[in-house]
Amino acid sequence: ILFLAFAMFSCTEQPSRKPIDHTKKAPKIDKHLITNAIDSIMQSQEKAWNQGSINDFMNGYWESDSLQFIGKSGINYGWQPTLENYLKSYPDTTSMGKLTFDNLHTDVLDENHAHVTGKWLLEREIGNLSGHYTLLWKKIGGKWVIIKDHSS
Amino acid sequence: ILFLAFAMFSCTEQPSRKPIDHTKKAPKIDKHLITNAIDSIMQSQEKAWNQGSINDFMNGYWESDSLQFIGKSGINYGWQPTLENYLKSYPDTTSMGKLTFDNLHTDVLDENHAHVTGKWLLEREIGNLSGHYTLLWKKIGGKWVIIKDHSS
Repeated sequence: ILFLAFAMFSCTEQPSRKPIDHTKKAPKIDKHLITNAIDSIMQSQEKAWNQGSINDFMNGYWESDSLQFIGKSGINYGWQPTLENYLKSYPDTTSMGKLTFDNLHTDVLDENHAHVTGKWLLEREIGNLSGHYTLLWKKIGGKWVIIKDHSS
Repeated sequence: ILFLAFAMFSCTEQPSRKPIDHTKKAPKIDKHLITNAIDSIMQSQEKAWNQGSINDFMNGYWESDSLQFIGKSGINYGWQPTLENYLKSYPDTTSMGKLTFDNLHTDVLDENHAHVTGKWLLEREIGNLSGHYTLLWKKIGGKWVIIKDHSS
């Protein structure tokens, strides 16, 4: 699934060599293609979570100390601390449950940035959890990643 | 204060008529100037709130039915419902208290978009409230406005 997602990214590159229109400020962007790429990554995240792999789930995030995660405990920084917080909060598949993302809005801001608003649901035998998220996505090195996650 | 903020926006326009460099994809942006413009609006919001005017506080938001506000009660849409929710939650100056914004990060994404992460504090005799916000700002009609507010 991830491989498919990466294959889709390559399609977002300029497809032809026709002359550039200098009257436009920014290159034309295919919002539909970007939305699909992000949806695909989030589906991979759901799948990874529901197979019990928080490590694979973390593939959606920017692997950087500057990653921002704003949650119930305030703001936390960095890919590694975010991974560790997930592992601490969800130590086994019972606590992880079944994750569903429901993207309500994907706003492609420019060729390298998108903002997603959505709902998350964890269905669990020990009690469901749910809330909303807003995600800032950035295309870095040809790959779309979450650089700021606010989940509540 | 708001007038000063608007005066600052006009400074973000292209200042000179020197030839455009077509090798660059996007026009050069002055991140410092955009950050200052946003800070100035948020200071105006604080001031309005602390003078008891939620109406003036709302000047910082996009006056549109598409405004997104994600808070404790989930997602709400529109400038008017957001105003009404504030008026319902904070019916008097005692409940409004003293508002302080503390912007931790302002990420200027492109010439028309910026993302702000910060902390809010309401100091009140009836008990303080605090949390974090992530704000997506957009320059619309020459004016920077919050188009998506996630506060938790």
